[in-house]
Amino acid sequence: MAPEKEVNNGVEWRIKVADGSSQTLVPEAKPAACSNFSLLGDLKLFIVGLAFKVCKFSQKAWDLGVDDPRKVIHCLKVGMALTVVSLFYYTRPLYEGVGGNAMWAIMTVVVVFENTVGATLCKCLNRVFGTCLAGFLAIGVHWVASQSGERFEPVIVGVSVFLLASAATFSRFIPSVKARFDYGAMIFILTFSFVSVSGYRVDRLFDLAHQRISTILIGTSLCIIVSMLVCPIWAGQELYTLITRNMDKLSDSLGACVSEYFQDGGCSLADGTDYDKECQKKLQGYKCVLSSKAAEESMANFARWEPPHGRFYFRHPWRQYIKIGASMRSCAYCIEALNGCINSENQAPECIKKHISKNSLKVSSNSASVIRELAMTIKTMKKSPNIHYLVGDLNSAVQELQTDLKSLPELFSPQSNMEAEIPENKKIEAASRTVVVTLMPLMESIPLVTQASLLIEIAARINDIVEAVEELSDLSEFSPAGNDKGKKIQPSNHFLPSRHEQKDKETMKTIQRI
Amino acid sequence: MAPEKEVNNGVEWRIKVADGSSQTLVPEAKPAACSNFSLLGDLKLFIVGLAFKVCKFSQKAWDLGVDDPRKVIHCLKVGMALTVVSLFYYTRPLYEGVGGNAMWAIMTVVVVFENTVGATLCKCLNRVFGTCLAGFLAIGVHWVASQSGERFEPVIVGVSVFLLASAATFSRFIPSVKARFDYGAMIFILTFSFVSVSGYRVDRLFDLAHQRISTILIGTSLCIIVSMLVCPIWAGQELYTLITRNMDKLSDSLGACVSEYFQDGGCSLADGTDYDKECQKKLQGYKCVLSSKAAEESMANFARWEPPHGRFYFRHPWRQYIKIGASMRSCAYCIEALNGCINSENQAPECIKKHISKNSLKVSSNSASVIRELAMTIKTMKKSPNIHYLVGDLNSAVQELQTDLKSLPELFSPQSNMEAEIPENKKIEAASRTVVVTLMPLMESIPLVTQASLLIEIAARINDIVEAVEELSDLSEFSPAGNDKGKKIQPSNHFLPSRHEQKDKETMKTIQRI
Repeated sequence: MAPEKEVNNGVEWRIKVADGSSQTLVPEAKPAACSNFSLLGDLKLFIVGLAFKVCKFSQKAWDLGVDDPRKVIHCLKVGMALTVVSLFYYTRPLYEGVGGNAMWAIMTVVVVFENTVGATLCKCLNRVFGTCLAGFLAIGVHWVASQSGERFEPVIVGVSVFLLASAATFSRFIPSVKARFDYGAMIFILTFSFVSVSGYRVDRLFDLAHQRISTILIGTSLCIIVSMLVCPIWAGQELYTLITRNMDKLSDSLGACVSEYFQDGGCSLADGTDYDKECQKKLQGYKCVLSSKAAEESMANFARWEPPHGRFYFRHPWRQYIKIGASMRSCAYCIEALNGCINSENQAPECIKKHISKNSLKVSSNSASVIRELAMTIKTMKKSPNIHYLVGDLNSAVQELQTDLKSLPELFSPQSNMEAEIPENKKIEAASRTVVVTLMPLMESIPLVTQASLLIEIAARINDIVEAVEELSDLSEFSPAGNDKGKKIQPSNHFLPSRHEQKDKETMKTIQRI
Repeated sequence: MAPEKEVNNGVEWRIKVADGSSQTLVPEAKPAACSNFSLLGDLKLFIVGLAFKVCKFSQKAWDLGVDDPRKVIHCLKVGMALTVVSLFYYTRPLYEGVGGNAMWAIMTVVVVFENTVGATLCKCLNRVFGTCLAGFLAIGVHWVASQSGERFEPVIVGVSVFLLASAATFSRFIPSVKARFDYGAMIFILTFSFVSVSGYRVDRLFDLAHQRISTILIGTSLCIIVSMLVCPIWAGQELYTLITRNMDKLSDSLGACVSEYFQDGGCSLADGTDYDKECQKKLQGYKCVLSSKAAEESMANFARWEPPHGRFYFRHPWRQYIKIGASMRSCAYCIEALNGCINSENQAPECIKKHISKNSLKVSSNSASVIRELAMTIKTMKKSPNIHYLVGDLNSAVQELQTDLKSLPELFSPQSNMEAEIPENKKIEAASRTVVVTLMPLMESIPLVTQASLLIEIAARINDIVEAVEELSDLSEFSPAGNDKGKKIQPSNHFLPSRHEQKDKETMKTIQRI
């Protein structure tokens, strides 16, 4: 029992120090025996901490697997491909066919197998072509070196390795090469130095090159077959899903951001209810758009290596998705600024808020539905019959918001409407009131004006997204919008017809006003 | 001559089509003989095009080399390391030491040698530990398998390869593992499957493991020595330079952006003079900040592997640079929105612009000098004696800008100052003017209000950068700001003393006004 007690003491001592209040109670110089026990205590704490960390890590890994089961499937695919390629070792006839070099096939599978088909294909083709090119060059250099006598042979080989390795390494810095042939350049250096240096020792150079190329071909074809046939993950499909999902997030975020500002029933950070969490998630959605540039670019790079799959034919305009992503990001920057303004302490008074809330909400909801319609266009791969109406809606909402802003001073100077009716002697009083009222609320309405003006800027940037999506629909020849096709999409946008009716009424009103 | 003429025809025909105006002049069906010649012409065009592309590519590569000569040095370092490791093949005693496995050393150099010391060290350590761990595990599995009879041996080995490869592949998806041990996990799979599968055939398993580990150690130590001793590129130093350079760009961009708006003498897109190009470059500087997240994160990841170098001790708080980068990006988002507002067609009239131009320019120049001072703090690694004054300056400039905004309606209603003096009968006229004047310019001053309000938001976000830099200076124990040290920094900020005097005068004025 004694050691345990001491351990407890050790723990108590720590707690006391952590308290900071009872330091004088602790003896400064501990006896040697005591320090041994506290070491045990430390060890115990360390083990508990380690166990806790391992638990947390496992939980994180489990969540990751549950969140995207395809990752687990990918891991099983890698395991399967490796086990299959190991058969070359286990079965005698296969082993005798490629000899001890079967390990090159294993290495190929480990190095080349990637998450998406495009990435795997890119690496496979890079590996095969890099190996072949370097192999032929190395054999050529070997031949030249062998002709120039035993003395110069290592010099020629050494210099060629130095020069070609340097040049190939430099090529990896060039952006266009890096994007597509980075791995190929590395394999080129590897194979060239390996073969040309081996050539100095190994006499059966052609055998070596043949075995290496055949084992690499076995490895790469196995990888390609497994990655394309067993639950394939296409980079193109991933890019496509990423873009449409980001569009949905952007529209949700825009809607939530503005409605949170104008409606008190919006979500709050403090409350921990499910509704609020959901709302906060929506509000933060645009952040995914801000940080998805690298993912979009790498996926577009891999997608171009892929054969036709699903609804994507060969040479699908993948670069256009990067453009759409960039225009979405430019919109998300504005939402970020808008979010900053909304969270600022300087809030406009309720009465002024109300004045433009209707049209601000309209601009944001119209913006959101334009983005949602664009997402739907990409999802269904059919030109939308509604997009021009929706853009028209958005533009008219923007104009109405501008009108609201124009009439903001009217709110502060109520006499402007009544001027004609009020008698001359009362005008003096009204004039002095104007000055007071107009001076005060402008400062208070600044966040509101900023918010409205950012909303207008966002609407302008949404037009860029519309253009980019239209370019995509032209490039990849989306089927044109027929009446019946339009109806097919409508169920998911069931609010559109009613909003159209509303819009028509409003347009009529605007015309009457003018 | 005939073929050349035909070629010319072919070219002419192309030009005509490109014109689009003279399509009827071109015969639609060309004779068969003619198509042969045009094939030749096409070939010539293709070769010219190819030569042009090669020239362009070489030019790009040359520019890249001139732009950053360290890239060229890195390539030469790789070539050197490879040539040195090839010596194992050329010299008999070394070759006999490690046998045919010398190629593992070559492979290690090719795969492990990276641009920065941190990345090279990260890969080297990952490779060594991954290999050792997997090697021991594989030998253990081999022992268990060999005990369980010839029949079960391949089954046990196969199942272990499948399970461990799947698990290690899955671990590569976990963000914390991916950031630090991605390469180690790959090498683990490679070595484990290689050794455990080889174990089934090769009897001298320990010899194999020993040779592999010793060749890998030769390769990695060579890489580490070359990358650390020959013109080393430290990831930490790169991150540090990136952050300070981005700060300078951000401050330039902010200054240029606002002064372009207010001063007609600012830069224009159309003019092609050197001054304008320089100005445009400054204006676009913030875009580097927007897109440098990935670079910052990877460099911070590599920097933690590096030994103390230059002014950075071991465990320098590299993560803090990521925080600074994030706060700078949050500021850059606002500059992006500001830039959008400035480029919008809806420009405020000159008279209103003038009203707040002075304080807008002051806020932007103060913001710029705060950021520049922060950059200087990081560059000199000394706590700045001026930063609190500069932040004070910025805050008072923000307050003055807010006062300007408050007094914006005064501008539209000139009678507010004169109200007391003007006789009763003239007040009526003044009142009606108020309404007209306040109604009109508010709409026009919206871009201005937005711009000012975004500037205020930017100033608020700069406070986050200040906090992040202060945290860094505490964490990495920057030497405190002494009076003499403060003076040392001042030459680069030579405008500060005069601005301070000015500020003091203005503060006095403000106090007197109150």
